[in-house]
Amino acid sequence: MLSFESDYIEGAHEQILKRLLETNMEQLSGYGTDCYCERAKEKIKDACKCPDADIYFLTGGTQTNQTIIDAMLAPYEGVIAAVSGHVSVHEAGAVEYTGHKVLELPQHEGKIHADELEAFLRNFWQDANHEHMVFPGMVYISHPTEYGTLYSRTELENISCICRSHQLPLYMDGARLGYGLMSFDTDVTLPLIAECCDVFYIGGTKVGALCGEAAVFTCHNTPKHFITRIKQHGALLAKGRLLGIQFDTLFTDDLYFRISRHAIDMAELMKKGLHERGCTFYLESPTNQQFILMEDTEMERLKKHVAFSFWEKPDDSHTVVRFATSWATKKEDIAGLMEIL
Amino acid sequence: MLSFESDYIEGAHEQILKRLLETNMEQLSGYGTDCYCERAKEKIKDACKCPDADIYFLTGGTQTNQTIIDAMLAPYEGVIAAVSGHVSVHEAGAVEYTGHKVLELPQHEGKIHADELEAFLRNFWQDANHEHMVFPGMVYISHPTEYGTLYSRTELENISCICRSHQLPLYMDGARLGYGLMSFDTDVTLPLIAECCDVFYIGGTKVGALCGEAAVFTCHNTPKHFITRIKQHGALLAKGRLLGIQFDTLFTDDLYFRISRHAIDMAELMKKGLHERGCTFYLESPTNQQFILMEDTEMERLKKHVAFSFWEKPDDSHTVVRFATSWATKKEDIAGLMEIL
Amino acid sequence: MLSFESDYIEGAHEQILKRLLETNMEQLSGYGTDCYCERAKEKIKDACKCPDADIYFLTGGTQTNQTIIDAMLAPYEGVIAAVSGHVSVHEAGAVEYTGHKVLELPQHEGKIHADELEAFLRNFWQDANHEHMVFPGMVYISHPTEYGTLYSRTELENISCICRSHQLPLYMDGARLGYGLMSFDTDVTLPLIAECCDVFYIGGTKVGALCGEAAVFTCHNTPKHFITRIKQHGALLAKGRLLGIQFDTLFTDDLYFRISRHAIDMAELMKKGLHERGCTFYLESPTNQQFILMEDTEMERLKKHVAFSFWEKPDDSHTVVRFATSWATKKEDIAGLMEIL
Amino acid sequence: MLSFESDYIEGAHEQILKRLLETNMEQLSGYGTDCYCERAKEKIKDACKCPDADIYFLTGGTQTNQTIIDAMLAPYEGVIAAVSGHVSVHEAGAVEYTGHKVLELPQHEGKIHADELEAFLRNFWQDANHEHMVFPGMVYISHPTEYGTLYSRTELENISCICRSHQLPLYMDGARLGYGLMSFDTDVTLPLIAECCDVFYIGGTKVGALCGEAAVFTCHNTPKHFITRIKQHGALLAKGRLLGIQFDTLFTDDLYFRISRHAIDMAELMKKGLHERGCTFYLESPTNQQFILMEDTEMERLKKHVAFSFWEKPDDSHTVVRFATSWATKKEDIAGLMEIL
Repeated sequence: MLSFESDYIEGAHEQILKRLLETNMEQLSGYGTDCYCERAKEKIKDACKCPDADIYFLTGGTQTNQTIIDAMLAPYEGVIAAVSGHVSVHEAGAVEYTGHKVLELPQHEGKIHADELEAFLRNFWQDANHEHMVFPGMVYISHPTEYGTLYSRTELENISCICRSHQLPLYMDGARLGYGLMSFDTDVTLPLIAECCDVFYIGGTKVGALCGEAAVFTCHNTPKHFITRIKQHGALLAKGRLLGIQFDTLFTDDLYFRISRHAIDMAELMKKGLHERGCTFYLESPTNQQFILMEDTEMERLKKHVAFSFWEKPDDSHTVVRFATSWATKKEDIAGLMEIL
Repeated sequence: MLSFESDYIEGAHEQILKRLLETNMEQLSGYGTDCYCERAKEKIKDACKCPDADIYFLTGGTQTNQTIIDAMLAPYEGVIAAVSGHVSVHEAGAVEYTGHKVLELPQHEGKIHADELEAFLRNFWQDANHEHMVFPGMVYISHPTEYGTLYSRTELENISCICRSHQLPLYMDGARLGYGLMSFDTDVTLPLIAECCDVFYIGGTKVGALCGEAAVFTCHNTPKHFITRIKQHGALLAKGRLLGIQFDTLFTDDLYFRISRHAIDMAELMKKGLHERGCTFYLESPTNQQFILMEDTEMERLKKHVAFSFWEKPDDSHTVVRFATSWATKKEDIAGLMEIL
Repeated sequence: MLSFESDYIEGAHEQILKRLLETNMEQLSGYGTDCYCERAKEKIKDACKCPDADIYFLTGGTQTNQTIIDAMLAPYEGVIAAVSGHVSVHEAGAVEYTGHKVLELPQHEGKIHADELEAFLRNFWQDANHEHMVFPGMVYISHPTEYGTLYSRTELENISCICRSHQLPLYMDGARLGYGLMSFDTDVTLPLIAECCDVFYIGGTKVGALCGEAAVFTCHNTPKHFITRIKQHGALLAKGRLLGIQFDTLFTDDLYFRISRHAIDMAELMKKGLHERGCTFYLESPTNQQFILMEDTEMERLKKHVAFSFWEKPDDSHTVVRFATSWATKKEDIAGLMEIL
Repeated sequence: MLSFESDYIEGAHEQILKRLLETNMEQLSGYGTDCYCERAKEKIKDACKCPDADIYFLTGGTQTNQTIIDAMLAPYEGVIAAVSGHVSVHEAGAVEYTGHKVLELPQHEGKIHADELEAFLRNFWQDANHEHMVFPGMVYISHPTEYGTLYSRTELENISCICRSHQLPLYMDGARLGYGLMSFDTDVTLPLIAECCDVFYIGGTKVGALCGEAAVFTCHNTPKHFITRIKQHGALLAKGRLLGIQFDTLFTDDLYFRISRHAIDMAELMKKGLHERGCTFYLESPTNQQFILMEDTEMERLKKHVAFSFWEKPDDSHTVVRFATSWATKKEDIAGLMEIL
C-alpha cells in the first residue's frame, strides 16, 4: 500500500548504508571521538559558515531537545515555546521531567510572534512577584514548525533580536530542517540560522538517516561538561561512529540538501494534484507536510488504499489528515495517490 | 500605616500563642507523632464529617501542593489546573521541579469549567498520539481561587463527577479555605469538600496560624510511605508539635470558623464602603480579597497612606490592586481606609 | 517520665516565645523581607565576624541541606560526604531526589579524613573515564557529627585547604552547631567556621527554636536567584518573621551560646555520672550526645523509667543507645537519671 | 595497529548490515511497532523459554539502565548495586539524575554476595528510623560483571530467592550477556536468567550490533505506560526498525550465541598466550575481558604496538590494563599480540 504517513517510514539513504558497509571493520574509538564524527563536524561547520560552532551528535529529536534545553537552562528557568511546539505537546513531558517548565506562547500556524514574545518578557520582568515565578531562560522554535510552516528571514531576525536584548538563548528544533531550507518559499539559509540562533539541531532521522541529530552550538557556547550531561541523560552512544558516518555522508556533496530538495519537489507535485482534485487544504505548507480537511466518509474510503496521519478533528464529521513526502518518495507514489483520489 | 496588603502580615491568633506557651515544656516525640497532632487530626476529621480521612501537617502552601501533587501522580502524569492557578504561575515551577507538567485549562474568574475539563479529557484519550503526551493524572482547583472567587456546590459536584468518571483524583488547594467556607455567598461546606475531593488542604498560614497547612486525604487514600515522601521533599518538621498545637487550637471551639467569619464581616464592610465611595471593582469577590481598578495617579496618592497589593496593569494609566482583610483586621482599620478614600 | 531522647522534645526557649508574643500584632512584609530577619542577619554576621556573609532562614535541617546542596552543585556534580553523614543516610534520599549523587567517603567517628578526601579527588581527576562519572562538586561535613564528635581547628583547616585547592565549596551542617561551639574540648570558633567554609548553617531547631536554620554563605557567594530556588523547593515561609524573630532573639545577648553551654554542662554532668555508674561508652563525645553500649536486658529494664534513642545493634545481646541533653535539660533530670541507673 | 581496547570498536556483524540493506526501502511504522521488532521479540522469548516476557528495544546500556530502574522504582526507593557496579560508577549519575539513590554493597570481583544482601535488607527493616531512609526497591547485578566475572547458577538462585522473599525485583544488566552465556565456565543459561530475574537486558551494542539493547520483563510485569516513560526519557527511537532488524538478525540461527562463542574462543586463546608469556593476571575472567598487571615501563613500550584500556593504578610503578576480545576479533589478531609480547 502507498504510504505518506511520515518522513521516517523507510530506512536510510543508500549512500549512508554504503558508507556504513565500507567502514564497518575499521576499528574506531567510542563515544563520538572517532574520525568520522570529526569530519562530519567540519563539514557541518562549513555548511553553516560558522567556524566557531561546537557540534555534538545525538540519536533522536526528543532526546536532543531534552538534553540541550536542560543543559542550557538554569534550574529556576523554563523554556518559552509555542503552545503547539513539539516540546509542549508531543514529548511526554520530557522537558518537565528534567525539572523545567515550558512557558507557552500562542501559536500562529505553529509559529510564535515576535511581539507576543516581547510582551511576555516585558510582563514577566514588570511583575512584582516574578521571583515567585519561573524565569524565562531560553526560546524554543521549530523550523519547519509542527505544521510544516517556515519563519521568514525577517521573522527569525526579529525573534533573535528580542532574545539577544534579553540575553536569552534562541534554540531552533530542526527535526525537518532540510525540508525547510530547500523549500521554494524561504529566504532562510543555514548560515542565517547559525547567525540568529545560539543553538539548533540539524535533523537526520527524518531526512535520510537511520537515526541521528546534529546539535550545533554556534559560538563555542556549549554548556560545561556537556558530554557528561549527555551521558547522564542516557544519550551517549557507545558506537558514535554510527552518527558520525551518517552525517559525514549527508554533508558530502550536498547530499542532505539534494535529498531534501527532492522531497520538496514531490510535495509540490502532490500539492498541485491535490488542488486539481479539489481537495480542501486545512493548511498548505511550503515544506513536505500538507494538511487536508476531509469528510470522514471520504477519509475512511481513502484509508483502504493509502496510508496517512490523523491530525485533528475540527468537528464531528470532518478530520484533518497529514500527507508527508520525504527523501524517499517517488514520482510514481504521487501519481498513485492522484489516481486513488 | 494601615495595611490591607495580605492576610499573612500579622503573627498568629492570640489563642494559638497562648497554647504554645502552655505546652512549651512538655516533652513530646518528634515528626508529627505527638498527642497534639493526634488531637488536631481527630478534630479535623469531625469538622469534615469524614472518619476515613488521613491527615498530615505541612508547613506552607507551595510545599503542600508540591508534595501532594508529586506523591499522587505517576511519573508519566501531569496535573490539570487553571492557567491562573497558583501551581501554574506563582510557585516558581515547584511542580515541574518534581518532574510533572501542569496541564493548563482556561480560567474564568480563577475557576475551571466542568465542560472544558471534560473536553480536555475526551480530546486526550481520543488523540492517536496520546502515548507521546503527558497523561492527565489529577485535577487541581483552589477554593477560594486566586481571585477570591468560589465554586458553587453544583460546580464542585460536576467537576468531582467528571474526575471520578475518569478515575482522576480531585485536589483542592484551600490556602484560604476558612474565608471560603464563611462567605455569605456559598453553599459549599467542609463535609461537601471532603465528599467531592480525594485530597485537599485546610490553610493555616493565611487563617491565623504562624505557619501550617493540614492535608486531608479523604478515604484512606494516602500515597504509600507518605511520611518518607514528605521527608524526601525536605518538608518533615522535627517539632511537629508546632503544627499540631496550632491546628488543635484552630479546631477547638470553632476558632478557625469564627476568625474566618470575622474576616468576611470586615470584607463586607470594606466592600460597602468602597461602593459608597464610587470605587470601580475589577472583581468583587465573596471572600476576603477585593480587586479594585484605579487610575495610577489616584493609586500613587493612596499608597502614601495605606498598603495594598499590586495585581496587574490592564493599560498604561490604570492598575488593578488588591485589598485583603483577615482574621486580624479591625473595624477601625476599615473606618480608617474609608476616611483616606 | 524522664527523657533524653533528643534535643528537640521541648518547644522553644521562653525568651523566644516572649518575643513572638510581643511582636505578634506588628504588620510585617512576608517571605523573609521583614525587619526582624534583617536584624537577625546583622547579628549573625557580627557573631561570625563575617561582614561579607549572605544569610537566609529555612525551616528544617533536611530542607536546608537539600536546598543548599542542590543550589550550589552543577547538574553533573555530586556532594562528597561521610558514609555516615546525615545526607547519606537519614534524609530519605533528599539529595538524590534533586538529581545529585552523594559521593561517600569512609567515616571515622563520623568525620571524614583530609587525606582520604585528597586521595578521592586525585583518583577522580586521574581516572581516564572521569567524564563518565559524577564530578565532585562540594564537600559536606557535619559539626558536631552524627556521633557528636568535633573537627579540630587543624582538621577543619586541612579540609578547607584541600577544598580550596580543588575549587570545591566546603559546606558544614551545623544542626547542633551551638553544642559544638560551646564544648569544653574544641578550638573551633564561629569566625573560624566562617573562614573555612563557603557555606554552613546554624541550627535553630535543636538549639532552642521552634523551627529554623540560618544558612550562611560566607563571601557573597549565594547562588543566583536563591529566593526563587527556595520557593521552588517549597521551602519559602510566608511568615518569614517566625524565623527572623527566633534568630534575632537567639543572637541577642549571646542567648544561643548561653543555652548551648548549659546543654554541655548537663552533658558533662551526665558523662561523669555514667562513668561513676560503670557504664560502657560506645562513644564518649565532647558535645551533647553520648552513646552507651548496653546489655539488652538492662536496656529493657531502663526503658521503663527513662526515654532514650536506639542507635544500633552491634550484636545479638547488646544495643547502642543515645542519651542527649539540650538547652532544656535540668540538673534534676540528670540526678533522676543517675538514681535510676 | 592492533586493538583490544574494547568490544565496541568495530561496526556491526556483516549479517546485520546485509539485513538492513535488504529491508531498507520497506515502509514500516515507527516507534517499535514494526514487524521486525515483533519477530525479534518472538525469537527472544523463544531463546529465553519465557512466553510471558514483554520485550522493549532501547539504544544503549546507560539509557536502558536508567529507564528500567526509574520505571521499576517507587519515588522513595533506591536500587541496590555493587559499589563497582556500572550504575554506581560509570553512568555519570544517570540513576540519581532520575531521583533515586544507588544503595551500594561491597563488591567481590564485581559481584555482590547473597549474605551481604540479606544482611543489608534485614538491617534496613530493623532500623527504627527506616522511614527517614531510602527504601531498597530493586537489586541490580551485572552478568558478566564489570570485571568480566560470572555468577554461578547457585549464586544467582540465592540472590533471586532473597529478592523474592523481600518482594524486590531483581534486575540483570547484560551489556555483555552473550559473552557470559558462551563462557566455558558457566552453568547459567538464558532460560535460568529469565526465571531468576524480573527484568534483564540482552546487550547488542557490545555483541555485534551497531546499537541496541533488548529489555526483557519476564512475567508481563512491564511498568504501566512504559512506552510513555521511554519517550519521556528521550529514549524512544523513531525508526524502531533499526533495533528490531538487528535483534531479529542476532536471534536468527543462533547468530548471537555463535559470535559470542567466537569471542570466548579468542579470549581463551589470548589467556593461554598471556600465561605462556608469563604475564601477571590481575584478574583472569571466564569471559572476554582480561585484566593484566604491568610495570609501567613495559606498558608504555607495549602501547606503541597495540591498543588496550587503562583500568586502574594499584601503585606508582604498575598499572592494570584490560584486553578485550569480541565477535570481531580474528585469530591473527591474537597471534599478532603474542608476537608483540
